[in-house]
Amino acid sequence: MKAAIWALAPQARIIDLGHHTPQNWPAEAGFWLGKVYPHFAPGSVHVAVVDPGVGSARAILAASFRGQYFLAPDNGILPMIDGFAADAEVRIIGTHWLQRRGLPEPSATFHGRDIFAPVAACLACGTTRLDELGARSDHAVRALLDPPAVATDHISGRIATIDSWGNLLTNIDRRHLAALGDVQVEYAGRRIALRRTYADVAAGGLLALINSFDSLEIAASGGSAESLLGARRGDEVRVVHTA
Amino acid sequence: MKAAIWALAPQARIIDLGHHTPQNWPAEAGFWLGKVYPHFAPGSVHVAVVDPGVGSARAILAASFRGQYFLAPDNGILPMIDGFAADAEVRIIGTHWLQRRGLPEPSATFHGRDIFAPVAACLACGTTRLDELGARSDHAVRALLDPPAVATDHISGRIATIDSWGNLLTNIDRRHLAALGDVQVEYAGRRIALRRTYADVAAGGLLALINSFDSLEIAASGGSAESLLGARRGDEVRVVHTA
Amino acid sequence: MKAAIWALAPQARIIDLGHHTPQNWPAEAGFWLGKVYPHFAPGSVHVAVVDPGVGSARAILAASFRGQYFLAPDNGILPMIDGFAADAEVRIIGTHWLQRRGLPEPSATFHGRDIFAPVAACLACGTTRLDELGARSDHAVRALLDPPAVATDHISGRIATIDSWGNLLTNIDRRHLAALGDVQVEYAGRRIALRRTYADVAAGGLLALINSFDSLEIAASGGSAESLLGARRGDEVRVVHTA
Repeated sequence: MKAAIWALAPQARIIDLGHHTPQNWPAEAGFWLGKVYPHFAPGSVHVAVVDPGVGSARAILAASFRGQYFLAPDNGILPMIDGFAADAEVRIIGTHWLQRRGLPEPSATFHGRDIFAPVAACLACGTTRLDELGARSDHAVRALLDPPAVATDHISGRIATIDSWGNLLTNIDRRHLAALGDVQVEYAGRRIALRRTYADVAAGGLLALINSFDSLEIAASGGSAESLLGARRGDEVRVVHTA
Repeated sequence: MKAAIWALAPQARIIDLGHHTPQNWPAEAGFWLGKVYPHFAPGSVHVAVVDPGVGSARAILAASFRGQYFLAPDNGILPMIDGFAADAEVRIIGTHWLQRRGLPEPSATFHGRDIFAPVAACLACGTTRLDELGARSDHAVRALLDPPAVATDHISGRIATIDSWGNLLTNIDRRHLAALGDVQVEYAGRRIALRRTYADVAAGGLLALINSFDSLEIAASGGSAESLLGARRGDEVRVVHTA
Repeated sequence: MKAAIWALAPQARIIDLGHHTPQNWPAEAGFWLGKVYPHFAPGSVHVAVVDPGVGSARAILAASFRGQYFLAPDNGILPMIDGFAADAEVRIIGTHWLQRRGLPEPSATFHGRDIFAPVAACLACGTTRLDELGARSDHAVRALLDPPAVATDHISGRIATIDSWGNLLTNIDRRHLAALGDVQVEYAGRRIALRRTYADVAAGGLLALINSFDSLEIAASGGSAESLLGARRGDEVRVVHTA
């Protein structure tokens, strides 16, 4: 894919954001995309080839959202980005675009290299405009992971991903918590207090915190909350008032 | 290695193609090299430091082939590239080249940093010509994996690599199949039908396909053919007429 | 972190030296930093965010040493670099620097992105001088791993890291050995002879060598010394005269 990008955009700078989205939990890609894009420069192109359905009839989308571009299969990844459904301009990439550029017929199994890469390169260089790529997409695939349910006395969310230290990152974030006042977190039969950072509890102790991506996170100081609690992606996590 | 490349070629763009070639199956490096180089720009330099024999008397080769450069130990990796044995100009990198450039005496155990990197940098920049690197290599080390045996009624190849999803990629490719007509694949006591893409069979079902690198691949839709079939690199795979 | 670096230093070239420092053995980061920096160009900035204490009161240091810059928490990583304690100019990064640049308040848990990355970017570009970052650090945190103890008849060091092939890299190096004459290595109840390179012993045989980073290394030719000897980071390794 990088060779295919550089073939059309030799000056492009490329960052590997992640290559470890679990096959059975593609929602992780949408979660991270929503968390990291604000740190990127205007005009950046995000390519999310998390695509169990490669070769099937699913469309490939190109979107413009808050000054950046996003490419992904039409599988519910992009609607996970906060505000995306309301504000993005979304196009369906048509095969005519590849043909008009003189690019080869795409393979059935590696759209990342054959479609995503050349489109990303041309958007990055400004040699293609979004509206040249194809028709507007007017339907809405449901997000792979719904936003948390926010009630007056609690919030119900889910573990969106687990990082390499075993920290549990939920789809509940700072702004969801703001309305509730003093809270604690319920998960796996435990009540977990909200702290500022890992060093605020003794080694091995459980804590919850609002992490650097504004996500409610459950962690074990110096250890793995995943192992300690037998956590799994998708598990429900609740935030309640401090009793 | 990257620091050593940038010391001599500060403008070089570097792609990590792979760092996971199994120690006991170096053929995987040759397989991928042959599959990816056509996607790279003219003048690209491919550095394949897959080198169980580092520090022994084996030579290090620099080759020009179809407008690109290839560096590898003389261990049968490069002859795996289709057409290489016939068409490449191959030179043996001589230590005099390093001396003439004022580079330090190479270590006994990290030729990647001390020999491959500076040679690659100078070829990429055009500050060295291939014929300055050393004498022509006129012998032929045997390929680490022979091409498939193609008979009138079947083809016998091998599993060249297994990807991270458990798909089995063989050294049999599209052009080998062309002569046989309607075929199926035999492996691990199974007869497996040839399809177009993963989504063409139900989840968990086995299929064979010609993948995006024109390689015959055995896959389990949404699962791992490796686990399902107990597959190992090097196993024989046969293609036969549909009965 | 890369997006945060490029936001301020769009021309910066970035190398990932390693992302696999074991949580319980941060000394590995200091070991590698000391081994690789001599291969980098003057003005390079090394960012070592190995930081179990993120969010606690530990300082973040920026240092100038032998023409390059080094950023790390004040946790004993930097003093592992040979000569650092004596020769480096070390500053404590002050939050006033971020404020003066108009950068956001750092999060409590991701100083890599919020502090290290912008400081690194500005040092790389030359838009910040070291002395603008904060006050001089005049205390000395102890190195995470002490240098080997060198006696007249033996050297006592430790396994600093184990590489992906299972080779054991110690903190004993070429210059420590110079005074001892003919030596052998003692580890795990074995006496191991010093050779030049892996190919100097039969497959599966143990050897010691001075590797390409001038580090005394214990290896099993074509195999894993780690498995064979049950080795662990931090284990003592002794060098003695050949009996």
